Amino acid sequence: MICSFFIAPSLQAKEHPSLILTKQGVKDIRANLGKLPVFDNAVKQVQAQVDAEIALGIDTPIPKDYSGGYTHERHKLNFVMAQKAGTLYQILQDEKYAKYVKDMLFQYEAMYLDLPVHPKPRSYARGKIFWQCLNDSNWLVYMAQAYDTIYDYLTAAERKTLEDNLFRPFADFISTGNPQFFNRIHNHSTWGNAAVGMIALVMDDDELLERALYGLDDDGIEFGTKDDDGGFLKVEGQKAGFLANLEDPFSPSGYFTEGPYYQRYAMYPFLVFALGMENSRPDVGVLQHKDDVLIKGVYALLNLSDKKGEFFALNDGQKGMSLMAKELVTAVNTAYYYGDQDPTLLSIAADQGTVLLDQSGLAVAKAIEAGKAKPYVKPSVNYGDGPNGDQGGVAVVRYGDSDLELVFKYSAQGLSHGHYDKLSYSLFEGGDEVAQDYGLSRFVNIEKKGGGNYLPENASWAKQTIAHNTVTQNETSHFGGDYATGSQHHSDLYFYESNNDAVQVVSATEVNAYPGTKLHRTMAVIKDEGFEKPFLLDIVRIDGSKRNQYDLPFYFNGQVLETTFDYEQPEKLAALGDKNGYQHLWVEGVSKPLKSDSWQFTWINEAKYYTLTSSADKADQVMFTRIGANDPLFNLRRDAGIMIRRDKSKDTTFASVIEPHGAYSPVTELSLNANSSINALDVLQSDDDYTAVKITTVDDRSIVFILANSDASTSKKHKLKAGGKTYKWKGAYYLGS
Amino acid sequence: MICSFFIAPSLQAKEHPSLILTKQGVKDIRANLGKLPVFDNAVKQVQAQVDAEIALGIDTPIPKDYSGGYTHERHKLNFVMAQKAGTLYQILQDEKYAKYVKDMLFQYEAMYLDLPVHPKPRSYARGKIFWQCLNDSNWLVYMAQAYDTIYDYLTAAERKTLEDNLFRPFADFISTGNPQFFNRIHNHSTWGNAAVGMIALVMDDDELLERALYGLDDDGIEFGTKDDDGGFLKVEGQKAGFLANLEDPFSPSGYFTEGPYYQRYAMYPFLVFALGMENSRPDVGVLQHKDDVLIKGVYALLNLSDKKGEFFALNDGQKGMSLMAKELVTAVNTAYYYGDQDPTLLSIAADQGTVLLDQSGLAVAKAIEAGKAKPYVKPSVNYGDGPNGDQGGVAVVRYGDSDLELVFKYSAQGLSHGHYDKLSYSLFEGGDEVAQDYGLSRFVNIEKKGGGNYLPENASWAKQTIAHNTVTQNETSHFGGDYATGSQHHSDLYFYESNNDAVQVVSATEVNAYPGTKLHRTMAVIKDEGFEKPFLLDIVRIDGSKRNQYDLPFYFNGQVLETTFDYEQPEKLAALGDKNGYQHLWVEGVSKPLKSDSWQFTWINEAKYYTLTSSADKADQVMFTRIGANDPLFNLRRDAGIMIRRDKSKDTTFASVIEPHGAYSPVTELSLNANSSINALDVLQSDDDYTAVKITTVDDRSIVFILANSDASTSKKHKLKAGGKTYKWKGAYYLGS
Ligand SMILES: [Ca+2]
Ligand SMILES: [Ca+2]
Ligand SMILES: [Ca+2]
Ligand SMILES: [Mg+2]
Ligand SMILES: [Mg+2]
Ligand SMILES: [Mg+2]
Ligand SMILES: [Mg+2]
Repeated sequence: MICSFFIAPSLQAKEHPSLILTKQGVKDIRANLGKLPVFDNAVKQVQAQVDAEIALGIDTPIPKDYSGGYTHERHKLNFVMAQKAGTLYQILQDEKYAKYVKDMLFQYEAMYLDLPVHPKPRSYARGKIFWQCLNDSNWLVYMAQAYDTIYDYLTAAERKTLEDNLFRPFADFISTGNPQFFNRIHNHSTWGNAAVGMIALVMDDDELLERALYGLDDDGIEFGTKDDDGGFLKVEGQKAGFLANLEDPFSPSGYFTEGPYYQRYAMYPFLVFALGMENSRPDVGVLQHKDDVLIKGVYALLNLSDKKGEFFALNDGQKGMSLMAKELVTAVNTAYYYGDQDPTLLSIAADQGTVLLDQSGLAVAKAIEAGKAKPYVKPSVNYGDGPNGDQGGVAVVRYGDSDLELVFKYSAQGLSHGHYDKLSYSLFEGGDEVAQDYGLSRFVNIEKKGGGNYLPENASWAKQTIAHNTVTQNETSHFGGDYATGSQHHSDLYFYESNNDAVQVVSATEVNAYPGTKLHRTMAVIKDEGFEKPFLLDIVRIDGSKRNQYDLPFYFNGQVLETTFDYEQPEKLAALGDKNGYQHLWVEGVSKPLKSDSWQFTWINEAKYYTLTSSADKADQVMFTRIGANDPLFNLRRDAGIMIRRDKSKDTTFASVIEPHGAYSPVTELSLNANSSINALDVLQSDDDYTAVKITTVDDRSIVFILANSDASTSKKHKLKAGGKTYKWKGAYYLGS
Repeated sequence: MICSFFIAPSLQAKEHPSLILTKQGVKDIRANLGKLPVFDNAVKQVQAQVDAEIALGIDTPIPKDYSGGYTHERHKLNFVMAQKAGTLYQILQDEKYAKYVKDMLFQYEAMYLDLPVHPKPRSYARGKIFWQCLNDSNWLVYMAQAYDTIYDYLTAAERKTLEDNLFRPFADFISTGNPQFFNRIHNHSTWGNAAVGMIALVMDDDELLERALYGLDDDGIEFGTKDDDGGFLKVEGQKAGFLANLEDPFSPSGYFTEGPYYQRYAMYPFLVFALGMENSRPDVGVLQHKDDVLIKGVYALLNLSDKKGEFFALNDGQKGMSLMAKELVTAVNTAYYYGDQDPTLLSIAADQGTVLLDQSGLAVAKAIEAGKAKPYVKPSVNYGDGPNGDQGGVAVVRYGDSDLELVFKYSAQGLSHGHYDKLSYSLFEGGDEVAQDYGLSRFVNIEKKGGGNYLPENASWAKQTIAHNTVTQNETSHFGGDYATGSQHHSDLYFYESNNDAVQVVSATEVNAYPGTKLHRTMAVIKDEGFEKPFLLDIVRIDGSKRNQYDLPFYFNGQVLETTFDYEQPEKLAALGDKNGYQHLWVEGVSKPLKSDSWQFTWINEAKYYTLTSSADKADQVMFTRIGANDPLFNLRRDAGIMIRRDKSKDTTFASVIEPHGAYSPVTELSLNANSSINALDVLQSDDDYTAVKITTVDDRSIVFILANSDASTSKKHKLKAGGKTYKWKGAYYLGS
C-alpha cells in the first residue's frame, strides 16, 4: 500500500474521549459551566432535544424509505441524537445519556449483521441503514463520536460485541464492500473515508486507518464508469482515500471545485476527521495538510456567501443555505481554535448564536464573552480552481461591505455537480440577487418533489448554458453539454485587479467551450463619483471562426418598469427552442428592430431600482423570457429573463452596464433616484488588440474603458486612437474620460 | 347654511401655537428634553433632515410635473420640511428654523396669486402647486401647522401679507374654486376640508371654518358626474364638508369603507383637523363625533393589518404599506394621548421607533420610558360597513397571535376604490400570504409606471371578480363590473362567531352580484387536535336560477409540489378569455376529468407547506393559471393561481380546506410534516336547509361540519340525517365527528 509508512502504530494507550471532545476539553468545559451564556445556551438546547428523544424512546426501524420517509429520517435523527447524548454524558456526567447511547448502539448491533442492502434501488452504492452508502457513512461519522464518548462507560465485553458485530462490519461494508463508493475523488468518498477513519481512531485500528487515509489498493472499478448523477467513478491516474480527496478538490487557497454548497456539506467530514487526527495522531499532520488548506477552506467558504450569509449558488447549490448551517458552526469554531484565534470569526459565531460542545466551542464562547469579537468584512477574492489553483477560478468582486457583490465563474467543470456555465456571473446588492444564477433543480429532502432528489430539470435546465448569465452559441451548451469533454477543460484568467476602490476588474477567456470560438469576458465594478452607487461594466468579446448565433441572457427578479426599445407580447406563449434548456423558456416579449446604438431596461426588485444599458447591433433582437415551458410538474421557478440574440455574427462584442440606483419604500411611498445616470453605451472599437467602450452619462460626461486584449501585463505601455481621441496608459486597461 | 349654529365665535384671544402643538405642550417638551430617548431621537432625526434642507436652500419651482417629477417632489418636501422646521423652532427655540419657514412661505406668497392652474391635465380637479387639488390640500394641511408655529415670530403686517396673498386665496381655490373636489364624500374632500379648516383655525376665520366643517352650500355639480377614477362626484341626498365625510365612510365601529390602505391615508387629515379642533374648539366635539369613531378607527386600522403589520390589500391597496407609516405614528400617538392611554398601543409605538413632536408624542415617549408598554395582540374582529354598520362588512378571523389570519370581505362597494369582490377572502400565516388578494395595479409615485398613477390593468384586472378568491359566474364580474350598480348593494352577514378557540365561523350571503343567483359563503377556522395547525374550511353554496358556469380561483404564492389529479401543460400558453380579467390569465395547466370525489394540491411558500383539499364534481376542471396575458408592459405581477371551473351547474356547492402544515428550512434542510392530514373531503348534503361536509383524516377520523342555511339563530334546535348518521345540535352550525 502506497504511503503506508506514514502510519506508525500510536505509542501511548488510548484515552477516551479523544476523538473530537478531549478529556482535557471536558475538564475545562465543566470548570466553565454556568459562566458563558453562549455555551450554556448551547448545552441547554442540546439537552432539551436529547431529553425529548429519550422520553420518546429509541426506535431503529427496518430500513425502507428514501430521504424524507420515516425510516430515513428516524435513523438520521438517531445518529445525530446519539452524538449529542454522548457529549452531554461527558459534560453533565449524567449516566442516562450514556445509557441512551448504549441502548441505541445495541439495537443497531442486534440488527446490523442480518440487514440486507437497503430495498430502494436508486443509488449506485446502496447502504444498509439508508438507501445510499453516503448516509450510512454519515451515520458512522456521528456514531464513532458517540461511541468514543461512552467508551469508558462500556465494559470491554460490550465494546467487543459492538466492534465485532456493528462497527467493523459497518466500516467494511462502506469501504471494501462498496469500492465504487469508497475509492472515488468525490464528496461521497470523503464521507466514507472519514467514517472509516473515525471509527478506526476510536477502536485504535491502524489497518482501518490506513484504508481511510489512502483508500483501497485494488477496487476493481473500470475507468469511465459513472454514478447515478453522471459523475465518473474513476479516471486515469486517480488516487483514493481521505488525503487524496483532500488533495484534489481543494485549490491551494481553499476553493472547493464543486462550489460552496457542496463544500459546506463536505467540510464537515474533512474537518471532523482532521480534528480526530489532530487530537489522536497529530504526527500525521492531516489538519495541516497542503499548507493548512482546510483552515483556508473555511475562509473561502465564508467569502463565498453574500451579505446575508447565503452561499452563492454555483453549480448544484440550493439557495438559502447559509453561514447559519451547523457545518459552519463546526467550521468557524475549528478555524478559530485550531487556527489563529482570528477575532473576526467571533462575530460570525455570535451571529450563529451557538457553539460546538467541545474545547473549540468553549474557546469561542469565552472569547465572545470577553468581548473580543470583531466584524468579519468580506474582501474581494480571486480563487484559483483545481488542485494547484491553475484551472481557472472564481472571483468575487465586492464594493463596500458587500454592498455590491459580483461573482464571476471561470472555473473548471466542478465534478459531477458542475454546470456548463463558463464565464457566467451573478450579481448581488446587499445580499439581494440582481442577476441570478438559477442554482439547482432539486428540493432537498422534500419527498413530494422526486423523493427529494435531483429532478430531471436539473440536467435539462439548471446545468445548461442558457440557464446562466453567459453566452450560448447556436443554442448549444458549452462542450455540447458533454460532461467528459467539459471535465477536460477550464477557462483561464486574463487578469484580476482589486486594489483600487474606484475600479476592480476581473477578466478571463474560454476557448474550449465552443471549438473555434474564443470568449473573452471582462467585468469591471466601477464607482464613478457621478453615480450614486457602483455599477458593473460587462464586456463580452467573441472571436469566432464562422458566423454563429450568440444568445446572452440576463436573469433578473422583480418587476419590469421601462424599456427604451419597442417590443411585442406574443398572443400565445411558445417555447424558445426544443432542447439544451431552450425548451424551458417561454418567450414573453420580442423586440422590434432596435433603433438606437444602445438600449435600456429598468426594473425594480426588493425596493431597489436597476437599469441595464447595453450597446446594440442593428440586427439584435431583445427578448423577455420566463422559465416554465415543458415543465408540467412545476419543477422550475417561473423566473424572468431578458436576452440579447445576435444572429449571423462572427467576431462581435456585447457591452452592458448593470447599474443599481435609488430605492423605493412601500411604507413612505417615496421613490428616490429612479432614473439611470447613463444616456448611452457604445463600443468604440473591438478587435484582437483592444476593446474600447464609452459610457455617456445623462449629464453628458464620458467614461471610457479600454482593455488591451493581447497583453495583460501591468507594465506594458499602450496607445490607442478611438472615437477621435488618443488614449495612452500603462497596464491591461484604461479607465478615464 | 345648515348646522352653522354649532360655530359660535371663539371667546378667548387665540394663542400660538395652538393648532396641533400647544403652548403648554411646548413647555412640557422643553422640560423633558434629554430625558426620553425615543423623543430625543425623533427630535434629532427631524433636525438632521431640516438642517440638510436649510443647507440646500429653499426652492419653489414653477409647477410642471406629475407625481415623481421634480417640481412635484420638491413642493411636497417643502411643506413637510416647513411643518418640521416650525416644530423645531418651538422645541429648540432656534430662530433659524422660524426664518426658514418664513422665507419659504414668502416665496410661495410671491408666486401664488399669479400661478395658473397646473399645466398637467389628468385630474378632474387640477391644483396650482400640484397637478391635483388633493396635493394642494396636503400642502395647506402642513403649511397651516408651519404657519401656526411661527405665527408669533411674524409681524402683524407679515401675517396679513401671507393671509391675503397666500392662505386665503389658497383655501378659496381648493374650496369654492373647485367644488367638484371640495364637496364630495371622498378622501380627496376630507383633505380639502381639513386643509381649509386648519388654516381657518390658525387665522381664526369662522367663515372658512364653517366651510370646512359643512361644505359649500351650492356647488353647482350635477348628480352622477364622475371623477377621473370613475368615482361619483355627487349622489342624491349627499351632504358635504368635514363632518359629513367623517359620518359617511366610517362605520360606527371605525371601519372605513375604502379599506385600510385608503383609511391610513385618510386618517391623517381626519385626525389632524380633529386635534386642531380639540385644541382650539373643543366645544364642537369633532374628535368625539359619532361616538369617538376616530379613535375607534385607529383600532380598526391596526386590526386590519397582518402579523407583520402590513395592511390587508382590500380594494385598491398597495401591498407593503404598514403600521410603520408616518400616518400611523400620528394615529397611535393620538389614540394613546387623546384616548384612554391604552398601554398596548405603546408596543406599536415602540416598534415604530419614533413619536410625534408634540404633547401626544411626549406622553407616549414618557410611558415607553416608564416601561408601561404591553403587547398589542390583535383580536378576531367583525366590522360592519356603511355609516350605520349595516351594509355588510369585513371579518378578520385570527387564530393565536395572528398565526393564522382570515380576511373575509362581504362589504359594500367601497366607493371608487372598491373591487368587484363579493364574498372574497385572503389568508395569512404569520403575516405571509397563503391566499392572496392581488391589491391594486399601480406603482404609487413610480413615474416610469404610468406616471405613478393607476394603470389600465387596475380596471381590466385588479378590480375584476376573477382577480379575487371568490366565485365568478359566466366569466362576468359581479354587477357586470358596473360601478353604479355595485354601489347600490352590499353583501349581508349570515352570522359571525369567534368565542370558541377551536372553531370560529363567519358566514355571509350575496344576492345582487348575479341577479337570480344567491351566493352563500361560510368560512370556518378550525383547530382540531389531530392537526398540527388550524385550518380553514371554505364552503360556497350557490343557489342559481339557471345553469351557469362557476369559476372559483385560489391565488397562491410559492412552488407547486404535488397534485392528486392529472393535468396537462398546454404546448402553447393562451389567455383564458378575452374580457373581465380573463384576458390576463395564461392557462398553465388543465386537468383531465377528476377521478375521485375530492382532490388535493400541495405547495410550499416561505418555507411552509400548504394543502388545498377540495370536493369535486365529476365535470369539474381544475386549471393552473398565471397572471400576465395581454399585459405587454408587465404592469401585472406574474402570480400563480389554481382555479376550479364548474360548468352547466345551477345549484351547487364548493367545499375546500386550506390546510397549513409543517415547515422546511433551507439551512438545516429538514422537512417537517410535509403531508396533509386529510384524506378526503365530501359534501354529504347541500340544499336550502342544510349544508353538511365531511373531512376524513389520514388516520380515518371524521370531522363533520353542518350549516343551517335558513336560520342562523343561536337558540334554534336542528336535527339532520346525513351520511347515514343523525346529527342534533343547537345554533347555526354543528362541528363534531
Ligand atoms: Ca475571428
Ligand atoms: Ca333553491
Ligand atoms: Ca336554484
Ligand atoms: Mg448554475
Ligand atoms: Mg486551459
Ligand atoms: Mg382586490
Ligand atoms: Mg342587501
